[in-house]
Amino acid sequence: MANVAQRLEELGITLPAVTPPAGSYVGAVKVGNLLFVSGHGPDLGNGKYIRGKVGRDLTVDEAVEAARATALCILATIDSVVGLDHVRRIVKVLGMVNTAPGFNKTPSVINGASDLFIQIWGEDGRAARSAVGLAELPFDIAVEIELVAEVDD
Amino acid sequence: MANVAQRLEELGITLPAVTPPAGSYVGAVKVGNLLFVSGHGPDLGNGKYIRGKVGRDLTVDEAVEAARATALCILATIDSVVGLDHVRRIVKVLGMVNTAPGFNKTPSVINGASDLFIQIWGEDGRAARSAVGLAELPFDIAVEIELVAEVDD
Amino acid sequence: MANVAQRLEELGITLPAVTPPAGSYVGAVKVGNLLFVSGHGPDLGNGKYIRGKVGRDLTVDEAVEAARATALCILATIDSVVGLDHVRRIVKVLGMVNTAPGFNKTPSVINGASDLFIQIWGEDGRAARSAVGLAELPFDIAVEIELVAEVDD
Repeated sequence: MANVAQRLEELGITLPAVTPPAGSYVGAVKVGNLLFVSGHGPDLGNGKYIRGKVGRDLTVDEAVEAARATALCILATIDSVVGLDHVRRIVKVLGMVNTAPGFNKTPSVINGASDLFIQIWGEDGRAARSAVGLAELPFDIAVEIELVAEVDD
Repeated sequence: MANVAQRLEELGITLPAVTPPAGSYVGAVKVGNLLFVSGHGPDLGNGKYIRGKVGRDLTVDEAVEAARATALCILATIDSVVGLDHVRRIVKVLGMVNTAPGFNKTPSVINGASDLFIQIWGEDGRAARSAVGLAELPFDIAVEIELVAEVDD
Repeated sequence: MANVAQRLEELGITLPAVTPPAGSYVGAVKVGNLLFVSGHGPDLGNGKYIRGKVGRDLTVDEAVEAARATALCILATIDSVVGLDHVRRIVKVLGMVNTAPGFNKTPSVINGASDLFIQIWGEDGRAARSAVGLAELPFDIAVEIELVAEVDD
């Protein structure tokens, strides 16, 4: 896949600023042709995040938007570390939803991120995945997503 | 390890149908000699899953069975993607148990899956592992397991 | 990085005994130059663990100590499997905190582990990371951490 910047422009997407790490870690680490990307949240810039428990504070639709916003932050990090044009495919996604008791439509929520990756990379954006409900996420963010990508060596 | 089909027959195991993805993802992705397998649940076929919170709706023994059923679904997916004879070893298992408050015997539950892998592959089935309690799992399934396997390149 | 034993001595650190697996798994599995390390807890030896829910039974400071104790147990396992001098870098950390409802300062807690890795390996100890709140951890341990390290092939 050649020019991700052009694809993002076609989709009307502007990448956000890179999220600064919230602790003693980095946004992503490359080993060989694998890129391990840290858990990211729906960072809207200037310290503003989409927060709250899905099924209580957020509807499914709002949570899907939070997952999409999280995916955009991941794209910004990948771009800053290896460049988006060096991504060959998204390999494995772990989608973590900040769930209110009884909310279990977590796959629908994480589709908000997965569908964006598929819009960008086609079937190479369709990864292996788990999408589960966490008791608590950092600073009460609504969604956290980490992933492994295959990149040029 | 040569013939997994024969070993399954010795164990009296018939593989279930491959679980269809519950969203915008695939069952497994191969990169080099690593196979990243999506989170699977105890799919009994025809949309029937073992559901509920362990420690409230299910006993430990029932949850062990759910973990074993989940492992069978993982085997079906691996077989469909790379073929079980191409598995060299199970590398890393993340076992996620749908826990009722206060239930923390999660390792015993996930042994239901790990023990099956060891029955099939011997010590090559004995993986690194985490076995933890999740607040919510998709559609209230009792167990979800994802893993990384080493496969022929 | 040459001599980790010397660095540990400078830091006044004595490695604990290797934690025995709590089920049908092993402490770590190496594939190529990746080492997948099982979830470890704050094992103080002789079956004594730091237990309880962070934000209710443990303060943040106590939980940071639990994360550091967990990291020491991980070091002991890595040393026994490949030898600490063969670690090139810590690649990806998944930090799981046993959270009381409403406790979400999980990144601060997991810094207790990450900061130790950075003390030992410098920037090669600064990994990609997620630090999240789990509903339940095995036997009510306060923290569980798994990781992927790059090691000599």
